[in-house]
Amino acid sequence: MGADTVAGIDPGTRRLGYCVLERRGTRVATLAIGTIEPRARAMKDRLREMADRLDEVFAAHRPRVVTVERAFVGKNPRSALAIGLARGVAMVCAARAGADVAEVTPGEAKRAVAAGGGAAKERVQRMVQLQLGLDAPPPFDAADAAALALCGASRR
Amino acid sequence: MGADTVAGIDPGTRRLGYCVLERRGTRVATLAIGTIEPRARAMKDRLREMADRLDEVFAAHRPRVVTVERAFVGKNPRSALAIGLARGVAMVCAARAGADVAEVTPGEAKRAVAAGGGAAKERVQRMVQLQLGLDAPPPFDAADAAALALCGASRR
Repeated sequence: MGADTVAGIDPGTRRLGYCVLERRGTRVATLAIGTIEPRARAMKDRLREMADRLDEVFAAHRPRVVTVERAFVGKNPRSALAIGLARGVAMVCAARAGADVAEVTPGEAKRAVAAGGGAAKERVQRMVQLQLGLDAPPPFDAADAAALALCGASRR
Repeated sequence: MGADTVAGIDPGTRRLGYCVLERRGTRVATLAIGTIEPRARAMKDRLREMADRLDEVFAAHRPRVVTVERAFVGKNPRSALAIGLARGVAMVCAARAGADVAEVTPGEAKRAVAAGGGAAKERVQRMVQLQLGLDAPPPFDAADAAALALCGASRR
């Protein structure tokens, strides 16, 4: 069985988490994990920084599928709108890189790393660290992106 | 006084209206006006088609500023989320083309073409046709984009 490369994106306009995993059988290797925090103040420039970085990550690792957190309007409609901007950018970058896009709910992503879909952020962070064998717990948004990638990988 | 090139984008994932105007003193010339209706079914591919077309339009006409309808969560949160995706894409295309992005409300855009911010779509369509000297009324989304562009041009 060949290797399968899957990415996860936790979209946001202040911070965007990303993770690219390679699965071969039951083994998972972390190809990239991190957070994009644009330095520009203007939204268009922040989104552009994210697009440029995502283009680089996808070009380097060529994921087959990019798993993005599904949109929903929650307690804060304003932040939902801002997240929508980053989601649109991530989807275009994925499409231009030739990847499929899968949308999963936050609960589905959490269940991929921790029993129960309501796990606290700290627990997701810790479980991602353990599952990927990382030296240190990744930042929250990167951990969420890793959970999304693991969810996408398990769906194959 | 030199020419000033201003674009307007009415974002949507089913249809995206665009218009590019050149203002020289009190004269306004229409460089491009139309609607992008992606043929793909998958959202990532629809957004990519929009990005590709907008890249072409902006490369051809090099707008100084791109006026985009401001986001708000209205009666339909689902459609607001979908519009956010297209807005993010339009903003990245504008940024990559070196343009500034201005956000205006639908009411401000309508006031730029018709007295009173609550004008019906048909009236905006008709006023845009008259102001730009078009042979036929433009499609609704293109007319809204033209109103956004006229609003951006008047703000200089």
